[in-house]
Amino acid sequence: MASFDSLTFITDYGLEDGFVAACHGVAARIAPAARVIDITHLVQPGDVRRGAAVLAQTIPYLPPAVHVAVVDPGVGTARRGVAVQAGDSILVGPDNGLLSWAIAALGGAERACQLTNGDLWLHPVSPTFHGRDIFMPVAAHLAAGTDLAAAGDEIDLADLVTLPAPTSRVRDGEAEGEVMSVDRFGNVQLSIVAADVSELGVGFGSPVVVRAGRRQLTVPFLETFAAVAPGELVAFTDSAGLISLAVNAGDASQQLGLPPGAHVRLSVARPS
Amino acid sequence: MASFDSLTFITDYGLEDGFVAACHGVAARIAPAARVIDITHLVQPGDVRRGAAVLAQTIPYLPPAVHVAVVDPGVGTARRGVAVQAGDSILVGPDNGLLSWAIAALGGAERACQLTNGDLWLHPVSPTFHGRDIFMPVAAHLAAGTDLAAAGDEIDLADLVTLPAPTSRVRDGEAEGEVMSVDRFGNVQLSIVAADVSELGVGFGSPVVVRAGRRQLTVPFLETFAAVAPGELVAFTDSAGLISLAVNAGDASQQLGLPPGAHVRLSVARPS
Amino acid sequence: MASFDSLTFITDYGLEDGFVAACHGVAARIAPAARVIDITHLVQPGDVRRGAAVLAQTIPYLPPAVHVAVVDPGVGTARRGVAVQAGDSILVGPDNGLLSWAIAALGGAERACQLTNGDLWLHPVSPTFHGRDIFMPVAAHLAAGTDLAAAGDEIDLADLVTLPAPTSRVRDGEAEGEVMSVDRFGNVQLSIVAADVSELGVGFGSPVVVRAGRRQLTVPFLETFAAVAPGELVAFTDSAGLISLAVNAGDASQQLGLPPGAHVRLSVARPS
Repeated sequence: MASFDSLTFITDYGLEDGFVAACHGVAARIAPAARVIDITHLVQPGDVRRGAAVLAQTIPYLPPAVHVAVVDPGVGTARRGVAVQAGDSILVGPDNGLLSWAIAALGGAERACQLTNGDLWLHPVSPTFHGRDIFMPVAAHLAAGTDLAAAGDEIDLADLVTLPAPTSRVRDGEAEGEVMSVDRFGNVQLSIVAADVSELGVGFGSPVVVRAGRRQLTVPFLETFAAVAPGELVAFTDSAGLISLAVNAGDASQQLGLPPGAHVRLSVARPS
Repeated sequence: MASFDSLTFITDYGLEDGFVAACHGVAARIAPAARVIDITHLVQPGDVRRGAAVLAQTIPYLPPAVHVAVVDPGVGTARRGVAVQAGDSILVGPDNGLLSWAIAALGGAERACQLTNGDLWLHPVSPTFHGRDIFMPVAAHLAAGTDLAAAGDEIDLADLVTLPAPTSRVRDGEAEGEVMSVDRFGNVQLSIVAADVSELGVGFGSPVVVRAGRRQLTVPFLETFAAVAPGELVAFTDSAGLISLAVNAGDASQQLGLPPGAHVRLSVARPS
Repeated sequence: MASFDSLTFITDYGLEDGFVAACHGVAARIAPAARVIDITHLVQPGDVRRGAAVLAQTIPYLPPAVHVAVVDPGVGTARRGVAVQAGDSILVGPDNGLLSWAIAALGGAERACQLTNGDLWLHPVSPTFHGRDIFMPVAAHLAAGTDLAAAGDEIDLADLVTLPAPTSRVRDGEAEGEVMSVDRFGNVQLSIVAADVSELGVGFGSPVVVRAGRRQLTVPFLETFAAVAPGELVAFTDSAGLISLAVNAGDASQQLGLPPGAHVRLSVARPS
């Protein structure tokens, strides 16, 4: 099996403790030649969907790697650990759906193992820190050239846990979706893809009607948030290919009161 | 053209999303041998002056590198992207003044190109994420040995956008300046250089009068904040060579009510 | 003297300024082949005990390295800087106790020098930024192969400043300790080791009585926080081998009102 130059790492461990560094240390001991790219460690504690979304949206830009993902509210329980080959990479983490959207982004799983080979782990294994004692050491061995099959028993790809896809459909002249995430700039990313609003007949320059709960407002659909004046609302296709709502030089999430998960509908503005 | 061992990276992208990692991934694919040194990604969104100040104060300690800076409220508009050679380094980013203080710190621009060669970019280019699709890929190609001239059309150095220097002058026996930044410790960094207070006759141990708005107070000028008792105010020359106000083991910014941009005057305390 | 592949770095510098990057840059110039593993830079400003605890709990998982630690409220005063050999590593930092628990975790100091050789420093030395101008350059020279003896005058190991160990003892059928830290998940880590509660006769599944101030409550002692229902309290042995209190999918520190330093006693629950 080929080795990997890179490990990548996403967790909800935060940056205030030594948790991330302990995992980096484990990687450096086992696979000293591999670089580690941190994706983020500020996923909200236990927020598996958010971790899955960030990983899936970032992974197309990462090099071939062993990608380690740990947002794992069920650590130490019966949920299993897995290593999954997809595209030119391997993903390692808990089998709780966290990896599923990234696997899809890489073209689907090709082979998967349950992490049952304790020879690749650090012992004693802490029941609450599998990132340090199971996921990272296994990943580092894989990066250093250990074959995926050595990680444990091969499992049926159909048995991998997958997260339900976010709501996203077009019907009755409306694109329906939900708020996927809110970024540092307050931009509201929807689960509606650019193709769906095209299907509705929305093009650059079109006004688009946004409905959320009982509220309704009309905003221009433009190439970028910087195309409107500071303080103005705008809809645009963001860097992940999803429709987003922004306030130029402002915070759309705060202004619109749209947190992650909120239901949103978009449609073409009709002349009144 | 020589290649560079290092890329450095400063943005306002924050650490909660995958934005920084996507750029790291792009760099690793194009210039796998280059190390990436993150300066900070917590510049306040869109705060070009703050980004410029942090970059300029840090760059003297960084190795020769391709320095990538992205605080870019005008992304996707007509503002151009540039690559600028200065000293033993190249700086890449939007031509909005962000790079200008660092260029000055490196001795001035020697050569500059507008980023017009799309062959070095990632396609499709997101109108809102030039860091990932233009600035970092161009920088990584430059780090890997591509000549600066290949990045695009050479431009007149006099056309580069420069930020106005912060207020700083000595007159009528006073050094005038503004608050450049407030660090994590609450230390208030002024735009007044050590030489200016020397010119006024302030030496270690001298009391110095600080005027800000209608307030006026007298603090000792000492080598370090730790030279006064906990809770006491002190003025000192900070690690960037600028006069700073601190409260030992406390937060001077909070205590003095001096946010970035506030106008401050310093003078020698006269015996009453 | 052998060189080191790795430097590690823990400070209270925060992530919003360029302080950490300046030190990374200094390391890259002096020891370009050494990787830098950041432990954390979010130790609360000046919290030497917290820095010491994170370093000591993380260091067993780090590779042999020159470990640089800077939580240094006395920077610029008479407190000395030191480099200490322990186990297969060298620790560099202020001699204020910050290194002491990590040195103990590595099996104790074997050799120590006061940092008196200014040839290894960056000049001019800022009185407030010894991390950049003294600790990191010295550490990088050591990583690059400079002998420890070149860092300065050898000092008596007994003269190294050590922090008092956290309270931890068993008496009258109770294990007494204090809150060592609260992590990102709100888990409350006590200074009580697993062996102490074993000595009391507490085993997995036992209820344990927690006394803090006037409050008293009984919680199950289990392998992991995920073994109880969401919202339920639990005691477990954490990944550092210390007894911790958690609320599954909740914040135990907030719920129990137990900040770092709070005194806590544990005992076996007696049948009523």
